[in-house]
Amino acid sequence: MCRWLVYSGTPVLLCDVLYRPVPSLIDQSLRSRMGVETTNGDGFGIGWYTDDIATPAIFRDTGPAWNNRNLREIADHVRSPLFFAHIRSSTGTAVQQTNCHPFRHGRWMWMHNGVVAGFDRLRRELCMAVDPALFSRIEGTTDSEVMFYLALTFGLDEDPPGAVARMAGLVERLGHDHGIEFPLQMTVATSNGERVWVFRYSSRRESRTLFYSSSVESLRALHPDVAWLRGLSADTRLVVSEPLGDLPGAWNELPESSYGVIPPDGELLAGFDVAMTAH
Amino acid sequence: MCRWLVYSGTPVLLCDVLYRPVPSLIDQSLRSRMGVETTNGDGFGIGWYTDDIATPAIFRDTGPAWNNRNLREIADHVRSPLFFAHIRSSTGTAVQQTNCHPFRHGRWMWMHNGVVAGFDRLRRELCMAVDPALFSRIEGTTDSEVMFYLALTFGLDEDPPGAVARMAGLVERLGHDHGIEFPLQMTVATSNGERVWVFRYSSRRESRTLFYSSSVESLRALHPDVAWLRGLSADTRLVVSEPLGDLPGAWNELPESSYGVIPPDGELLAGFDVAMTAH
Amino acid sequence: MCRWLVYSGTPVLLCDVLYRPVPSLIDQSLRSRMGVETTNGDGFGIGWYTDDIATPAIFRDTGPAWNNRNLREIADHVRSPLFFAHIRSSTGTAVQQTNCHPFRHGRWMWMHNGVVAGFDRLRRELCMAVDPALFSRIEGTTDSEVMFYLALTFGLDEDPPGAVARMAGLVERLGHDHGIEFPLQMTVATSNGERVWVFRYSSRRESRTLFYSSSVESLRALHPDVAWLRGLSADTRLVVSEPLGDLPGAWNELPESSYGVIPPDGELLAGFDVAMTAH
Amino acid sequence: MCRWLVYSGTPVLLCDVLYRPVPSLIDQSLRSRMGVETTNGDGFGIGWYTDDIATPAIFRDTGPAWNNRNLREIADHVRSPLFFAHIRSSTGTAVQQTNCHPFRHGRWMWMHNGVVAGFDRLRRELCMAVDPALFSRIEGTTDSEVMFYLALTFGLDEDPPGAVARMAGLVERLGHDHGIEFPLQMTVATSNGERVWVFRYSSRRESRTLFYSSSVESLRALHPDVAWLRGLSADTRLVVSEPLGDLPGAWNELPESSYGVIPPDGELLAGFDVAMTAH
Repeated sequence: MCRWLVYSGTPVLLCDVLYRPVPSLIDQSLRSRMGVETTNGDGFGIGWYTDDIATPAIFRDTGPAWNNRNLREIADHVRSPLFFAHIRSSTGTAVQQTNCHPFRHGRWMWMHNGVVAGFDRLRRELCMAVDPALFSRIEGTTDSEVMFYLALTFGLDEDPPGAVARMAGLVERLGHDHGIEFPLQMTVATSNGERVWVFRYSSRRESRTLFYSSSVESLRALHPDVAWLRGLSADTRLVVSEPLGDLPGAWNELPESSYGVIPPDGELLAGFDVAMTAH
Repeated sequence: MCRWLVYSGTPVLLCDVLYRPVPSLIDQSLRSRMGVETTNGDGFGIGWYTDDIATPAIFRDTGPAWNNRNLREIADHVRSPLFFAHIRSSTGTAVQQTNCHPFRHGRWMWMHNGVVAGFDRLRRELCMAVDPALFSRIEGTTDSEVMFYLALTFGLDEDPPGAVARMAGLVERLGHDHGIEFPLQMTVATSNGERVWVFRYSSRRESRTLFYSSSVESLRALHPDVAWLRGLSADTRLVVSEPLGDLPGAWNELPESSYGVIPPDGELLAGFDVAMTAH
Repeated sequence: MCRWLVYSGTPVLLCDVLYRPVPSLIDQSLRSRMGVETTNGDGFGIGWYTDDIATPAIFRDTGPAWNNRNLREIADHVRSPLFFAHIRSSTGTAVQQTNCHPFRHGRWMWMHNGVVAGFDRLRRELCMAVDPALFSRIEGTTDSEVMFYLALTFGLDEDPPGAVARMAGLVERLGHDHGIEFPLQMTVATSNGERVWVFRYSSRRESRTLFYSSSVESLRALHPDVAWLRGLSADTRLVVSEPLGDLPGAWNELPESSYGVIPPDGELLAGFDVAMTAH
Repeated sequence: MCRWLVYSGTPVLLCDVLYRPVPSLIDQSLRSRMGVETTNGDGFGIGWYTDDIATPAIFRDTGPAWNNRNLREIADHVRSPLFFAHIRSSTGTAVQQTNCHPFRHGRWMWMHNGVVAGFDRLRRELCMAVDPALFSRIEGTTDSEVMFYLALTFGLDEDPPGAVARMAGLVERLGHDHGIEFPLQMTVATSNGERVWVFRYSSRRESRTLFYSSSVESLRALHPDVAWLRGLSADTRLVVSEPLGDLPGAWNELPESSYGVIPPDGELLAGFDVAMTAH
């Protein structure tokens, strides 16, 4: 399975989000509280945007996050206004750098917690549905990466929610064609460096957990004595598979079949409908 | 912390012992039931003797055992009459190949579960007590490896129980000199390819767990229907930090402050007394 | 680029072939004399058959062969009558375990030195030509691995030379369709544990080097004083990208567009004709 | 052996110095032109200071620099006014992260190209000469790291040239005591984030190569058409084991038995005299 987090807002040192909370995502790599598998030690990855470069930096490795010194070093010395972090528990595919999240294509990043059921049987057809011009960019063997390239194929750059919906629709249609009743299980985060879109959906409507942080404004009202809240801009948000830290009222569950946009383009949340495309 | 196992007896494929039991040592790398830390994913190692080569082969790596393909490959294809396996949970030192067990010197192997309390403060003096001719063989930074080289210094090759007792005595004396009340916590296995010595001792008399297998003879009597027992020689034994498999009556706890010899040189077990040496 | 070797004959310790010759394949990982790229440090792999297990053991890793301790350990302690070894210089794809040779499928092993020109453009169609039942077994992103799965698709198990010829034919046809004048560059070794087939072919008829060892009988006649030759069976052969050791008369070049069979099924060598299949 | 570089001056993206020049340090990891060993693929490391954090970030790994994606990512996205980079060719000790340079202690970094002859025999006494309070900070087994901790012991924080001179004096004295005629071979760089000290010295007065860049002012005069020179501050300097790039007049050899200070504290260069200490 996996755990992931997104941060968007006031530039902070990555370690303030990755290591400092108790519990943190790094703690969750050793022992998470929720989730199908409580240890997420089959690799990890972070991706971060900097102010003046359009494409994000990606740092991924195959060992567990909890004992990786280079990850700690980078986190202690790199500041970013928008970053992804992911810790992996493999659902069967090889433990290798190219199977760690986040995946990147141009200025886009993508990470996923979940699974495409029966991916072994669907992989070939799903790969064939990827735009031929993009096919050779696929570097690994995960369902997650193929989902990303399908979303890119279906117009992620122009209409992220629509593209992800079309991708989900294809996965479900193909799955049903192969007799798989509940093909898709996903919480996904994707970003182009300006906005972040997060999705929570599963065919069975029993999705992996996903939480977004309460507004900084409401948190300051709840916790007037917590100093570090004052340094954060009003639009600062985190989205996490599993709550970090111990601040009451900090986390809110994303509903089933919904997606969020940070910073919002209108509403923060909206309903997510799988698109039944005739592919 | 750590978990380890020793096998001695009829040559078997390593996988029959490492992977096949439910639960197995490999299962324990992800989730052990006993032990201070239930995940042991900071590296692993195996060492095995072959019939015609005096020195054992050592295979160690820094990733978790549960996802290491090379380990699986070797286990599936290598047969040995005497082998060690260890999965590591670091007590603070670097995760690197030279800090994984088993350690080897000539035909001797050594592995350890436990800790030298306050090792940071004792390390220099303990290193200085190692025979100068052996000092440059120390490759890592673990207490476990220094304990090995101290045992070699104190005559491991001639009198293993005596050498280990003298090593334990030095650790305790130095620890007490530094105001550490309970300096030593250890279950240790060591072998020269002909015999295996296993030790269970801690200053506080609250040692990590250690079990030895019942005699093959008694297990056959207990479980006449279990086919694989028939292929094992009478002197086949396993010693493990934590029981493997699910065969009732298979495991017996090594008492506090005791050691065992396999195959026995007289008795299987004997009392272990720390030697108060004037070093 | 790469270097590889095959050994078939009297069971020997892998180190006798991998490390002992001067120069050895391990020397060639640091500095080879022939070849497009003289350092082959982008990973390595060995695969070996044992007497009683049908499928070969595979050990692959991403670091250079010259400094890998585990490789040395295995080589020093494992004996085999038939083994492959490969050191990699990447032609562009990721440095990861699943991109290291040899590749394995059931009892078959495969390794390759060379390149499919313009593989980036051909990859999708070549992957689509792989038997759908085999597609999900593809774990990496190399041209070499796809060539293997195409050969399996075209009947490697029943008619190895024919299957490899059909694979080469498809690569060339597709390459020409895409305007690539000389699509294929290959020296390939493949085995099912009973026989080894080695191929040397390139579209431009300027293939990477490939040598086979002289018969043991003729070597004994040439070098009656060399003791280790006496221990080898008459059918012992090595095939190498680049000569090992320094024994005069030991190596013979495989001609362009030819293949060899060890042990021979009739002739040792035969001509290799690319099959122009209508796929 | 090894190659290293130091950059100090206008903040730049690390890739502009590590990857862009032709040839670059990354090129030298695969094939250097000077040096005892032309491939430096036994690990690498970089260390960089940021504006607001006193301690440098360290990123080290055991694979070759030429194929490390994470190194490329960091270099492409991290800017620094002062950084070290080192590519390693081991002189015998293990290939592990803790044996890669630069080493760090507090705000100090250290890297070395060269060797302590007969280190195996001197290691114990050299380690014993390290301040006991610092001894437990030694994490690896290189001569380079011990030299660092000796320099720290001898007052690196207060008087870097003096401390390094005392360290060199001890190494030579101990070496001579052990019958080693020419004990020390070194080019060293060390920094506290404010200044960089570079040293070139060997007992035999046949030191590894070391070059410093010409002043930006003189380079602009030499090459008025080179645009990127205009963006560099007057005190920008590089120090390298082997020249990078292809700009005529850019590099000047540091004399034997000399050291440099960047930015200068008076003169850029001064003579280096080994201190004959009574230890």
